Amino acid sequence: MTDRADTVEAICWQGNKLQLLDQRLLPHEATYLSYGDVDAVADAIRDMVVRGAPAIGITAAYGIVLAARTRFAQSAAEWKSAIEADLQTLAASRPTAVNLFWAIARMRELMVDIDGNPESTLLAAARRIHTEDIVANRCMGELGAALIETPCAILTHCNAGALATGGYGTALGVVRAGFASGKITSVYADETRPWMQGARLTAWEMVQEGIPVTLQAEGAAAHLMKQGRVGWVIVGSDRIAANGDVVNKIGTYGLAVLA
Amino acid sequence: MTDRADTVEAICWQGNKLQLLDQRLLPHEATYLSYGDVDAVADAIRDMVVRGAPAIGITAAYGIVLAARTRFAQSAAEWKSAIEADLQTLAASRPTAVNLFWAIARMRELMVDIDGNPESTLLAAARRIHTEDIVANRCMGELGAALIETPCAILTHCNAGALATGGYGTALGVVRAGFASGKITSVYADETRPWMQGARLTAWEMVQEGIPVTLQAEGAAAHLMKQGRVGWVIVGSDRIAANGDVVNKIGTYGLAVLA
Repeated sequence: MTDRADTVEAICWQGNKLQLLDQRLLPHEATYLSYGDVDAVADAIRDMVVRGAPAIGITAAYGIVLAARTRFAQSAAEWKSAIEADLQTLAASRPTAVNLFWAIARMRELMVDIDGNPESTLLAAARRIHTEDIVANRCMGELGAALIETPCAILTHCNAGALATGGYGTALGVVRAGFASGKITSVYADETRPWMQGARLTAWEMVQEGIPVTLQAEGAAAHLMKQGRVGWVIVGSDRIAANGDVVNKIGTYGLAVLA
Repeated sequence: MTDRADTVEAICWQGNKLQLLDQRLLPHEATYLSYGDVDAVADAIRDMVVRGAPAIGITAAYGIVLAARTRFAQSAAEWKSAIEADLQTLAASRPTAVNLFWAIARMRELMVDIDGNPESTLLAAARRIHTEDIVANRCMGELGAALIETPCAILTHCNAGALATGGYGTALGVVRAGFASGKITSVYADETRPWMQGARLTAWEMVQEGIPVTLQAEGAAAHLMKQGRVGWVIVGSDRIAANGDVVNKIGTYGLAVLA
């Protein structure tokens, strides 16, 4: 893919190693760190080099490729049992990220039928997890943008963008698709206390893509809405219950009430 | 007055000089700066050493005492016309603070009838403006606290406390009176973007007074209210219109809608 959706890439596999954009340094520096060892990948998840549930799941999948490489080199006969410790380490790195457990379970299931060196099979699986996420994001983006009838500015909170996913983004995927089709004219990004994901990540992503963005204190949202300057509030979600309730970063509920 | 209301004092006249608590350094350092010259007082207002409309009015009144001292020393015959330049300088230091113009007008009116050295008369007037503000704050505090029927926690935004006034505070005056009478159990202070008056000033004031305070990101307010943990929202106001509409720091309108 060569279009604008790939301007921002948090995770990539290159030269037999995992490359992660160090999100702790954004927006001042865009530096990629290189990982060849699963323990370091678990540390990267724990230390917020990478964040966002889908991105963490994809990172873990690539981490398992690195683990398999090492364990198979140590013992071609015992790698399947030895790798369990690595899977536990990854699972403990961010206990709240549901995609992490999903990715580990999916990779573990695949291992059962592998004969010989597992690296290429597991790498293909990790790449598939990565690609599926981007495809799902693009699909969600198109579906979400289609709901918008009149071109308008949108408000978003936290970061549910390319940085939080395999690429493209969930909430910001809708923004990308909506901007491309002329449905979304500009973005108001809440700075998002206490960790400033909106200020550090969402505003940065939008600037990379050339989408007009205004960074604002959360307290400004009600006033903007009152003035009719926000058409939609589009946010990500950590979890969605069967009844449609969503769990997301503090501040989301207030936006829902105000909207 | 020696009770707890005087723990926090932004403005005091001492040793023939004006002392201002440098609010830019709070909460890390409580340093008083000493002023003997009206131009420096105007700079202090402009540079946010002192902020809050009532506090600015009181500061300007003391600044006029300093101006009168200098102008009278320069020329006992011409000081009343010479001081006009100083009043203009003060007026230009914070064009949005209505109390500033009120205090200047009140001091100017008083000058008309002064014969001889004006310092003691003007100092008495400045002290009166200061004391009247504290008395009004205490009265407002008692009246406000009396409205609260069931002991509860309150939420506040920005800083309308002793630091913003002659002492005691407007919104935080209600909190002080309510805490003293057992009506208010604790305070949630919005950190108040973009300048953090809640984090830097309100939380600090409450800590000085031993009133339990929780500092929070603005986005948390809706969730707290939903859980029934906030009984009242008590905020200051920059202006109040005849119909009761209030003008206050960004974020106040959102709290009103959410409440």
